[in-house]
Amino acid sequence: MADKGREDLLQQVKEQGDLVRKLKAAKGDKTQIADEVSKLLDLKAQLGEENAVQRKLILKTPKGTRDYNPEHMSLRLGVLEKIISVFKHHGAETIDTPVFELKDVLTGKYGEDSKLIYDLKDQGGEILALRYDLTVPFARYLAMGKISSIKRYHIAKVYRRDNPATTKGRYREFYQCDFDIAGQYDPMIPDAECIRVISDALESLDLGKFIIKLNHRSLLDAIFATCGVPQDKFRTICSSVDKLDKTPWEEVKKEMVEEKGLNEETADKIWNYVSKSGGANLITELRKDENLMMQKSAIFGLDSMELLFKYCSIYKVIDKIVFDLSLARGLDYYTGVIYEAVLSGDDIGVGSVAGGGRYDNLVGMFDSKKKTIPCVGVSLGVERIFSVLEAKMANKGAKIRTTEVEVFVASAQKNLHEERMHVLSDLWDAGIKAEQAYKKNVKLLAQLQHCEENGIPLAIILGEGELARGEVTLREVTTRKEVPIPRDQLIDEIRKRLQNST
Amino acid sequence: MADKGREDLLQQVKEQGDLVRKLKAAKGDKTQIADEVSKLLDLKAQLGEENAVQRKLILKTPKGTRDYNPEHMSLRLGVLEKIISVFKHHGAETIDTPVFELKDVLTGKYGEDSKLIYDLKDQGGEILALRYDLTVPFARYLAMGKISSIKRYHIAKVYRRDNPATTKGRYREFYQCDFDIAGQYDPMIPDAECIRVISDALESLDLGKFIIKLNHRSLLDAIFATCGVPQDKFRTICSSVDKLDKTPWEEVKKEMVEEKGLNEETADKIWNYVSKSGGANLITELRKDENLMMQKSAIFGLDSMELLFKYCSIYKVIDKIVFDLSLARGLDYYTGVIYEAVLSGDDIGVGSVAGGGRYDNLVGMFDSKKKTIPCVGVSLGVERIFSVLEAKMANKGAKIRTTEVEVFVASAQKNLHEERMHVLSDLWDAGIKAEQAYKKNVKLLAQLQHCEENGIPLAIILGEGELARGEVTLREVTTRKEVPIPRDQLIDEIRKRLQNST
Repeated sequence: MADKGREDLLQQVKEQGDLVRKLKAAKGDKTQIADEVSKLLDLKAQLGEENAVQRKLILKTPKGTRDYNPEHMSLRLGVLEKIISVFKHHGAETIDTPVFELKDVLTGKYGEDSKLIYDLKDQGGEILALRYDLTVPFARYLAMGKISSIKRYHIAKVYRRDNPATTKGRYREFYQCDFDIAGQYDPMIPDAECIRVISDALESLDLGKFIIKLNHRSLLDAIFATCGVPQDKFRTICSSVDKLDKTPWEEVKKEMVEEKGLNEETADKIWNYVSKSGGANLITELRKDENLMMQKSAIFGLDSMELLFKYCSIYKVIDKIVFDLSLARGLDYYTGVIYEAVLSGDDIGVGSVAGGGRYDNLVGMFDSKKKTIPCVGVSLGVERIFSVLEAKMANKGAKIRTTEVEVFVASAQKNLHEERMHVLSDLWDAGIKAEQAYKKNVKLLAQLQHCEENGIPLAIILGEGELARGEVTLREVTTRKEVPIPRDQLIDEIRKRLQNST
Repeated sequence: MADKGREDLLQQVKEQGDLVRKLKAAKGDKTQIADEVSKLLDLKAQLGEENAVQRKLILKTPKGTRDYNPEHMSLRLGVLEKIISVFKHHGAETIDTPVFELKDVLTGKYGEDSKLIYDLKDQGGEILALRYDLTVPFARYLAMGKISSIKRYHIAKVYRRDNPATTKGRYREFYQCDFDIAGQYDPMIPDAECIRVISDALESLDLGKFIIKLNHRSLLDAIFATCGVPQDKFRTICSSVDKLDKTPWEEVKKEMVEEKGLNEETADKIWNYVSKSGGANLITELRKDENLMMQKSAIFGLDSMELLFKYCSIYKVIDKIVFDLSLARGLDYYTGVIYEAVLSGDDIGVGSVAGGGRYDNLVGMFDSKKKTIPCVGVSLGVERIFSVLEAKMANKGAKIRTTEVEVFVASAQKNLHEERMHVLSDLWDAGIKAEQAYKKNVKLLAQLQHCEENGIPLAIILGEGELARGEVTLREVTTRKEVPIPRDQLIDEIRKRLQNST
């Protein structure tokens, strides 16, 4: 190594060491500290000091990922079960695709975000990358299988090398939860059902009030054309408009003018439109705008919105929807209606909890003859929903059960473990969920505490005296009431009690 | 490019082109053809002829992976639900870990198989790899969280860059389904429960007869010592013994002698032991072997097996188990009892459908002070189970339902789609699973065919005449019986019928 390079490296090691010491002193985020320690060790290793520092295995999950413990899983599986139930009520089936795709499949679908794709190492063979979302694999699935229509849901993890704000619940590995209707159908009929699916899902999760913002890409295009945006800038200006939910107009305008080269007048005209929102009345208002109505896509967009409003009324979600011209959605592939649900009650500020829209051209990108399948879909922001519900549980101090054990088999004296096992065996044979301590001898108090801490409703207590009389003690854990039960009537008695309690 | 290099490349392109043409002519496996075409295009691209060949996007999933369509998913989810129910009956909770780990976490855990690990590309930051199984991440989870006891199941996909025999149902991405008990407990109590869990799971899946082979690593070690195997060859000889379920002794012996340097006499002595199998009587027989009993680990192994047999008797799985000295299990990390379940009925030949054992030292590999947590667990071979069940379904010609739709809303004339939507909306409000065609006008026959093909039990048929009378027609799909129902009694009538049918 050249001396200059080595000097630089020494300087880097020093700086990184300082950073680690600072973070440790400040008792900073553990994941961050581990990340920085890892970098420090890498630098030292480059110095050839690997052995000198006795590199230790760092016990962590990769940056931006985490383990889910039984409490997390219990909450998550409960949420997903409710959402799946809604999807099934709308007749959806489910599919799965591999966690990685040929890199080419993902190329050219995500615009600037492509840099966030996780590539696999070239170990000889195909060039692969982890899926970035479930929509592109779905389009690949349809094109590959020449499937012309399907209504499916897909719940799986996706991967983005973003700089995650793990404190805000944003991770590099996270669940997506998608419902899509693919097929050549009549206008707005599947689209309206997607709105109803969002509404049903959010209601079933009991997240409080929400609104679903609606807009249409054709109408946005008409607005841009009317305001004088050159056609080749439609998508990039659309991206700027998309920021309006988090960024004040002045900043968005600056981006349009300074970065994207619009003139101020055009930008102000855009604001004049995109600051509007309302109900079906906004459709009527826009129809009176002669400049706008000169664009064919405006007529198409407004006709579509009118039909959608009518269908939303039939589907009884009219009070949940708002026509919002500032809604743009980031992704390039949307071609028609777009929507986004936000919580409007106490949980304002968590942002979008569901979104989606129509994307009629994506499947065609995978077909050699460009044959396409029109699609419309919903993606539920389950990670945000998990965060909201976790916070609610924490506020209430509520404890989530992580097992479904109905009966704990305990013993009151030593050396009764074989007796416990006989009872357990009978309980399992009878289809009763049951467990015991795996030690021969455990204090009775510890066994009963385990029941109380884990919400197990019933305990059977074995004692020598009772066993000699052919009896066992049945304890109701919450009330702590105990009754003797003849051993041979135990299963019936437990079944009776479990039935009554549900 | 040097001329020599270019010539080589041209030759490779020619050979690869011949291969592709041959495969296509022979109508070979589509996945293989796509793989080879991909290689050909890569070679041509290296020649700088990318544009000349107009490189097309190849529509396929990565080698050794596949999509799961709704039928696959329906079968799989049904199987997993039954298995999860068994795990829950034994009081297990569930966890999840990231799909990738720091490469260091996986290093040194899988011996020779480490070459099968999928590495992620170094995109700056940590060096990552896809998980190879669920056991090592579980051990990392325990060590990292300083968790001293847990009984958990984990069902997730794992990744191995093996040469997959996809025709035999072996893939590079596949499900693992693990149940483990971690904690410092008394001998054989959790181990016996694992045997019971295997038995309960296989019975609930109705796979036919099965046996669970048992052995003990200490006993194998004692046998190797007695036969004169040097201690540093225990694990590699263990790997050879592990092959006896698929390979005749003569071949295994050859490997031991020629590749691993045992003398013939030692190998023959080993065979003398590992060819034995039986019940508890084998324990008695081995206790009489004075040479063997000079090894402390033999005494420990046989005492353990005796206790396990006793507990298996209490847990009523004694008729399912066989003490089989040839059972060795491939993985290095097992330290105590090991087991493997095989189907013994019609489905002989599918091999092991479950396996596992005790691994007391794995967690300690992640602890800086080598503090360990004893573990014992079961892994169900769900991919093989899926294959067996798929074959059974195919034989029976049985069709799997992929949706749970209870009611299809049809119309008998044109332009009744809004009426259909009103009915649908009411059905969804009532919690009934319902769908319609997404086209305004579809032939009634096509709508009814959809119901029959998809096993939807009820159809509501709307007609102008009936609607004018305030009625709709309710059709029982299987019997094709139709009755008129007043529109306002529709929901009640449907609920009644759905209740009766379940």
